[in-house]
Amino acid sequence: MSAIRFLSGITPSGTPHLGNYAGMIRPAIRASRTAGVESFYFLADYHALIKAHDPERVHRSTLEIAASWLAAGLDPEHVTFYRQSAVPEVTELTWLLTCVTGKGVLNRAHAYKASQDKNVEAGRDIDDGVTAGLFMYPVLMAADILIFNANKVPVGRDQIQHIEMTRDIASSFNHLYGDHFTLPDAVIEESVATIAGLDGRKMSKSYDNTIPLFTPRDQLRKLVGSIVTDSRAPGEPKEVEGSALFQLYQAFATPEQTEAMRKSFAAGISWGEAKESLFECIDAEVSPMRARYDDLMAHPEKVEAALEIGERRAREKAHAFVQTLRGAVGLRSLREPQGHKKVAKDTRAALPSFKQYREADGRFYFKLVAADGTLLLQSTGFTAPKEAGQVIGQLQKDADALSALAAHLTPVEGVVSADVQAALDALRNAA
Amino acid sequence: MSAIRFLSGITPSGTPHLGNYAGMIRPAIRASRTAGVESFYFLADYHALIKAHDPERVHRSTLEIAASWLAAGLDPEHVTFYRQSAVPEVTELTWLLTCVTGKGVLNRAHAYKASQDKNVEAGRDIDDGVTAGLFMYPVLMAADILIFNANKVPVGRDQIQHIEMTRDIASSFNHLYGDHFTLPDAVIEESVATIAGLDGRKMSKSYDNTIPLFTPRDQLRKLVGSIVTDSRAPGEPKEVEGSALFQLYQAFATPEQTEAMRKSFAAGISWGEAKESLFECIDAEVSPMRARYDDLMAHPEKVEAALEIGERRAREKAHAFVQTLRGAVGLRSLREPQGHKKVAKDTRAALPSFKQYREADGRFYFKLVAADGTLLLQSTGFTAPKEAGQVIGQLQKDADALSALAAHLTPVEGVVSADVQAALDALRNAA
Repeated sequence: MSAIRFLSGITPSGTPHLGNYAGMIRPAIRASRTAGVESFYFLADYHALIKAHDPERVHRSTLEIAASWLAAGLDPEHVTFYRQSAVPEVTELTWLLTCVTGKGVLNRAHAYKASQDKNVEAGRDIDDGVTAGLFMYPVLMAADILIFNANKVPVGRDQIQHIEMTRDIASSFNHLYGDHFTLPDAVIEESVATIAGLDGRKMSKSYDNTIPLFTPRDQLRKLVGSIVTDSRAPGEPKEVEGSALFQLYQAFATPEQTEAMRKSFAAGISWGEAKESLFECIDAEVSPMRARYDDLMAHPEKVEAALEIGERRAREKAHAFVQTLRGAVGLRSLREPQGHKKVAKDTRAALPSFKQYREADGRFYFKLVAADGTLLLQSTGFTAPKEAGQVIGQLQKDADALSALAAHLTPVEGVVSADVQAALDALRNAA
Repeated sequence: MSAIRFLSGITPSGTPHLGNYAGMIRPAIRASRTAGVESFYFLADYHALIKAHDPERVHRSTLEIAASWLAAGLDPEHVTFYRQSAVPEVTELTWLLTCVTGKGVLNRAHAYKASQDKNVEAGRDIDDGVTAGLFMYPVLMAADILIFNANKVPVGRDQIQHIEMTRDIASSFNHLYGDHFTLPDAVIEESVATIAGLDGRKMSKSYDNTIPLFTPRDQLRKLVGSIVTDSRAPGEPKEVEGSALFQLYQAFATPEQTEAMRKSFAAGISWGEAKESLFECIDAEVSPMRARYDDLMAHPEKVEAALEIGERRAREKAHAFVQTLRGAVGLRSLREPQGHKKVAKDTRAALPSFKQYREADGRFYFKLVAADGTLLLQSTGFTAPKEAGQVIGQLQKDADALSALAAHLTPVEGVVSADVQAALDALRNAA
């Protein structure tokens, strides 16, 4: 069995904090070590350009985030770790996909609609300040996923829609040009531990309550010391429920250590002592990574070299696949014989066959064509290729489908239904 | 003086007819021979994918159109003649430009609005059947033009808007990332000879009244024979005004021949004789091309080889330029020092400087910053970078601009206007 391919994009912005580490970096690196899993992790620097118009910031963030993941243990020989922009084939695929994506699908994207709603509320023009980049983001994301035919894409709930859009876009392309893309599944990260910040709310840059992952040891001690607690005195039993301190401890300690700390809370450990334990526990995990991080930041060429390992691999794969896709849409050398694909299909098919296509009205149709090319049956228009595919599936499988599905079918003048039935029977027998 | 760079896209669809030849192919090839002109002619096959979802048709059309232009005398050593898809850097630039293009600009594109209007009229959803490809077409077109920094783009009246959009997009990019793009000018083709078709209306595929450019000699004679005339008998004087036959003759004959034919019309030449003259006149020009065309169609590898000449040149240029642009937006090797561009700028500038930027509200701003980084002056928001640029221009040039332009400027707390004036004076003196 071939490996299941996971793909995750990492936005290169900001300095990672303990919440990013425990919530994303650490679990992703652990997951990459699972047997039977092939991981593609990329720095989404083309995406970053949608919002960030400061070249230095994009450059610096890319370095910091890549160094963080490497310092945290990502093995570039094992994980395909790359910058999106090192695989410019992604933008070529974006264009191929743009041509089969309904604009209406993009109109309904949550992120875009949120921007529109804000504008409407503020009484501004509906697309005020909205760039085409924000609008087209879902197509670029589809290209990221489809260029490696990833099976699984771990996402938060807010990103599920994008995976559905990717599946739609992939289906449209497959429908028109043959079965090139695997439809990816979203893997919903329900169990992501929410890490509390200094003030007890979720650790997040926007609350300004973070502890940077690679802050120096003395600074880390100071920050841990400033975590908000209640005012219970030493000796008084303390609640683990709702305690930011306990939650953070749990994220870094072993289950045994966590259990012991729970008991210490009940036994009335002082906040000072608890903070010291937490600090040592975090520092024990972070300190070897911090040393690696500092070294990488002092030697950006090492980060570049590590990325190049994955980029060579990624680009080779992407390039070969995009060549195939170019051929499929008709962008191929004139040295290749004209119409060769069609000929290949025709000689194979002494049987009738279904042809799927899209009309100028944007709808998806199919027809049933005899081996000699005679049109036997014509469908009505479907809004999605999937629907057309389902009707075809039933016609191929179910002997009574012809009458059951009459509403979706348009008889062809001069063709009697017995001939259509015979053609479908022939197909069913061959399968 | 460097050459003026002309760029034209050719849609690879359909078989060229005499109207295409006289109206576009011949003048473009003649123009490419003008001294001081550098011509880029490309087959717009990425564009073709927006509408054509039949790979064999795209492949076949590319061959036919390329063979037609080559047969008609395009010199691939002199003109940079290439398939758009042979320069995939165009799609990468499309993404970079997408990130600086306001979605509102695309909403207003004529071609897109026409599709919307049709949907509204028919009572359908406003974006029914509209692909993202149609919507994004103007950005791809901008990339086609800007990737070679073309100066002149010959277009019909219906395409002027696209050149204006290209200029807007280029300005936004230049504003944010430095002066990389030349703003192209549209060259309006007012004088394109309209060639009459068989029925006297404009020769056009949609009227089904065309004479294919490379139809065989006997077929050409037959088609010319079928051109509609009035019923005047031999010997009766004939009108040149409104005569499809005369118009076609004029398009292929020398001025002297045309003059002679005008006299023959007045002298009552028979329609049969006039048609025979027209046929010989067209065939004299077309026949050597037809032989070359037939040869090229029989040897697609020759067409491929001819295209590869321009494609090597085009791709080399495009690749180098896109590398520069990637650097400008922040996509560069981590081996390059962080913030090096900024440093370079700062050491050069012991003077105050204007910084232009775009805010989250989508508007364009500038500020005036002293050599030591102190903020001196802040603009209000502009809807277009051009407006911001004009105000900056006036501030740099005109000693009284500070008060004259007060409406566009926001004073900075703690900065007295004398300091601002001094900074502007320093800039003006340095220039």
